[in-house]
Parts: sequence; C-alpha cells; structure tokens
Amino acid sequence: MLIKTAEDAGMHEHFEMIMPLRWSDQDLNGHINNARIVTLMEEARVRWLNSTAASEGLETFQCPKVVASLNVEYRKPVSYEDELLLVLDITRVGNGSFTVRHTGIQLGSSVFIGTTVVVPLDRESERPRKLTAAETAYLLRYAETASVAG
Amino acid sequence: MLIKTAEDAGMHEHFEMIMPLRWSDQDLNGHINNARIVTLMEEARVRWLNSTAASEGLETFQCPKVVASLNVEYRKPVSYEDELLLVLDITRVGNGSFTVRHTGIQLGSSVFIGTTVVVPLDRESERPRKLTAAETAYLLRYAETASVAG
Amino acid sequence: MLIKTAEDAGMHEHFEMIMPLRWSDQDLNGHINNARIVTLMEEARVRWLNSTAASEGLETFQCPKVVASLNVEYRKPVSYEDELLLVLDITRVGNGSFTVRHTGIQLGSSVFIGTTVVVPLDRESERPRKLTAAETAYLLRYAETASVAG
Amino acid sequence: MLIKTAEDAGMHEHFEMIMPLRWSDQDLNGHINNARIVTLMEEARVRWLNSTAASEGLETFQCPKVVASLNVEYRKPVSYEDELLLVLDITRVGNGSFTVRHTGIQLGSSVFIGTTVVVPLDRESERPRKLTAAETAYLLRYAETASVAG
Repeated sequence: MLIKTAEDAGMHEHFEMIMPLRWSDQDLNGHINNARIVTLMEEARVRWLNSTAASEGLETFQCPKVVASLNVEYRKPVSYEDELLLVLDITRVGNGSFTVRHTGIQLGSSVFIGTTVVVPLDRESERPRKLTAAETAYLLRYAETASVAG
Repeated sequence: MLIKTAEDAGMHEHFEMIMPLRWSDQDLNGHINNARIVTLMEEARVRWLNSTAASEGLETFQCPKVVASLNVEYRKPVSYEDELLLVLDITRVGNGSFTVRHTGIQLGSSVFIGTTVVVPLDRESERPRKLTAAETAYLLRYAETASVAG
Repeated sequence: MLIKTAEDAGMHEHFEMIMPLRWSDQDLNGHINNARIVTLMEEARVRWLNSTAASEGLETFQCPKVVASLNVEYRKPVSYEDELLLVLDITRVGNGSFTVRHTGIQLGSSVFIGTTVVVPLDRESERPRKLTAAETAYLLRYAETASVAG
Repeated sequence: MLIKTAEDAGMHEHFEMIMPLRWSDQDLNGHINNARIVTLMEEARVRWLNSTAASEGLETFQCPKVVASLNVEYRKPVSYEDELLLVLDITRVGNGSFTVRHTGIQLGSSVFIGTTVVVPLDRESERPRKLTAAETAYLLRYAETASVAG
C-alpha cells in the first residue's frame, strides 16, 4: 500500500553537515578510503537521527538501530584537503525500516551517493519494531518519494 | 558481447580465508560494525588479488585499484567471538572492471553478502585501464556467471 | 610494600601471538600507522586476558577494564607484508592495576615496545577494584620484575 | 647544550582546535577508545603542522614525519556527546626531533595528556633530517620549556 508518492523535486527537507575528515581516513592510494566513507555516512546519520531529531522533539530514534542493507556508488575520489558536505534525505519509509540516502559533495560535485536501509530495534527485546506515527511523519518530511508498505 | 555464461553452480573456484576479527571492530551495539565489515571484505580481496594471485603468477593485480560501487546485504549480526569465514568469487568480468562477491559465514550461516565493483588503474597515469587477457582468464576461473562486455 | 622482585631474566611466561595485519592499517607513509599499533597491542591484550586466561580458569579479567596510561617506543617501521609477532608479559602488579608490556617483533627485530597500565573495573559500579589473589598470582607468572604496592 | 629554557608559564602560544568526534570512536565500554585518542592527537598535530604552519609561511613540516615515541595519561573517560578541545604545545625541541604535548579538555577538565616525539624525514631519502632554523624558531614560540641539544 503506497500512502505517499511525492513528486516534489527538491521541495522536501534535507539534513546537511560539513563532515570533518581525518588524515588517517586516507588509504595508501592517497584518497579517503571507500570503507571509511561508510563510516562518514554513519556519522552523519547518527547526528541526524540521534541528535537533531531529538532536539526537534523526536527522541525515539535514539534506540539501537541495525543496518540491513548498504549501497554506495563512488563517483570521484574524496580528498582530505577539501571540505566534504553530506546531504541526507529519505528515499523509502516502510513499516519497520526506512532508507536513508547520503550524498557526498566536494568542490561542487557529487563524489558519492550511498543508501542505507535502517531498522530500528526495540530497546528491551533488541528485535525489529514498527515505526511510530511520529517517526513516519518525521521521515516523510525528508522524503522525495516515500512509501509505506501495507 | 557476452563471451561466457557459465551455469556451473558451485563448480567454479573460490578464494577462502578465515578473517581474524578485532575487539575494536565491535561497535556500541556489541556486534562487528557494518562499516568495518566493508574493511574485512577489502582485506580478503587484497589478500586474494595482491598476494594469492601473484603467488599463482598473476602480478598485475598489484596495481592501484578503485572501488566504483559497493553493495552489502547484512543478514545476521557478526560476533567477535565466533570464527568468520570469507568466501570470494566473481559475478561479473567486464572490459575495465569486475565484480567481486564476498560471502561472510559464521557458525554455518551466511551473515552477509557483499559485492564490490573493482576498477584496476594504470600505474603511471592512475587512470582506468583494460583488463589483460591473463587477468580475464584468471577471474573467469572464479566466476559462476561471468560476462565480458564488448 | 614490595612483595616480589624476580630477577628471572627470561624465565617467566609470555603470551605470544602472530597478529594479523590489514592493508588498511597502513597510512599514507606506507607503514602500519602508529595509532593502529596501539590497537594491535589492545587486541593481543584482549585475547590474552579475556580468552586465554579464561580458558586457563581465570574468568574475572573479562570484566570491563580501563587503560590509565600508555607508552610506546617505535623502533622500526612495521610493514604489512611481514609477519608480526606480539609478545606480552607483565612489568608491574599493583593493588588495583597492572602494567602489560607488548613487544612487537618483525623479521627477528624488535619493532616496537609498548607498556599499558590496565585498571580492572567492578562490573556493577564500573569503578576500580582490587585485584583478586588469583589474578595477582596469574599475572606474577608472567612477570619479570613484579611488585605489589602495599 | 641547552640554548633556551623559558619559564614563561602560560605565556607561550598554543594550537587549539575543537576535535570532532565520531560515534564509531566509542568502544564497547561506551567511551572514546584509548587507541582512537591517539588518532585524535595525530589529527590535531597534522592540522597544525601541515596546514596552520604552512598558512603562516612554514611549509617544510609538510614532509613525511615519523612518530618515535608516544606517551598518554588517560585521566577521565572521553564521551562522544561532549565537545573535546585539543590544546597543543611543544615541550622539547631537539636537533632532529621535537616533542608535542596534546592536552584534551572536556567539560572544563583535562581528560588526557599525551606527548609525541616527532621526527621529520627528508622527502627524498626518507631518512631523519635536521630541523631548519625556521622550524626551530616556529616551534620555540609554542614551547614552555624548550631546549635544543647541541
């Protein structure tokens, strides 16, 4: 059951941050390592869901979360010297999971695009749980084309 | 142009190794971190392509390589205490890239499956180069269903 | 109060392991990174105190532990390609802490020597606790010159 | 030969930065890992010597550098949630090496103090080289009690 299909190109909200890089994020090839980019995606996601969402009144995303699936397209090498902007939004909202898109931008170009399927866990049982209505509403604000499976 | 479509379920070769884990690979949730699993995939791939292939006479894969694309399905939590077997094979051989599949096995179950598109670079120009005939032949030995694009 | 000063050059026990290295442990300079060597020291120590000691009947070191102090002398670059042997012993046993020495050996030479002051914590209060008699006895087997402060 | 012993308590310069932390810097115990703190010290040092010094006209510290020795006193747990200030100054200037002190401050308290002996290398030979007069002068501005061995 599709309950929302927004065609609001660019009209939805985004979470943005300049991601500080470390010299040690570079590998022997002189660029930020591809596995480390996954850590940078994680860091931006944690700051959004655990801190920013909480500061906006939604604290339930501070629960443990599992990554069920990951996809990254590496478009250009990421350099330590240049500022890295991370832009996050939502590409899917399901019953018990949602998909975050992480776009890395350096010197005005998209350097990587990664999506992560996030599954919130019940704090007690440590098992997957349903998204609350408040969580779904929050995520949909950041969704270009979001759906909730029936 | 498809030059090979093997339907040799399980008949092809695999690169296998027990991947040593570190206590620090665990995150706050008490499991091996999802980004660190990408590092473990990388480590197995490096040992295969930079060392094992070279010991079998194919040294050209010691060139710099770029990861163009990454996909990981996380099926079960990976624990520090249990032995992790990594099994690598090839799912695609192209003109200038190939796709490595990394299957993680713990306690007899598949805990993750990840694929990585690898692009070998020319050592001088640091630009993508064509696979050599020897490289293609080597990779096809490890391919379940391999194709070379024309 | 000094209760033991062994002068048993080489007569005491050691914990030894070959420490598997990762390609990503290297930094831009092409050697294992100096901070990563601290992680390798940690990994050897965890395997000794959390696993080996437990398999010898001493399970209490599986408690949370804090590092209070760290010293490393880096003698030679550590390379990814060569086998790294880590040899651990004890240089001090106190009331509520002890000092582990980690010697890294590559190609027959000592490449680093690091000492770490470890403080076991009470599992409930997460505060420093006294070493038990069994812990002290265990550590003294690995001590060249060990003392227990009064 | 001691050529300078400043007794200028607090009168010398310091390099300061807020060090961004990552969720993944935490270990199972819920604090920033002790080995990761060495990486944070490295990051502050790299930003100072490779970037800030260069922006002030001293570019020669962008050469490869080796850490010869490391000491860290961990005074309090470092938490991911609180801002970490890193303050760097110089405690020793030698002929071919110098010692950087890294003080970590969180919530107004010193949480760790670490010193690192840094050895600049000749870019061609990759062997230790003498400090230049400009380098020595730069470092002495940041030195509380600095000496140059004869």
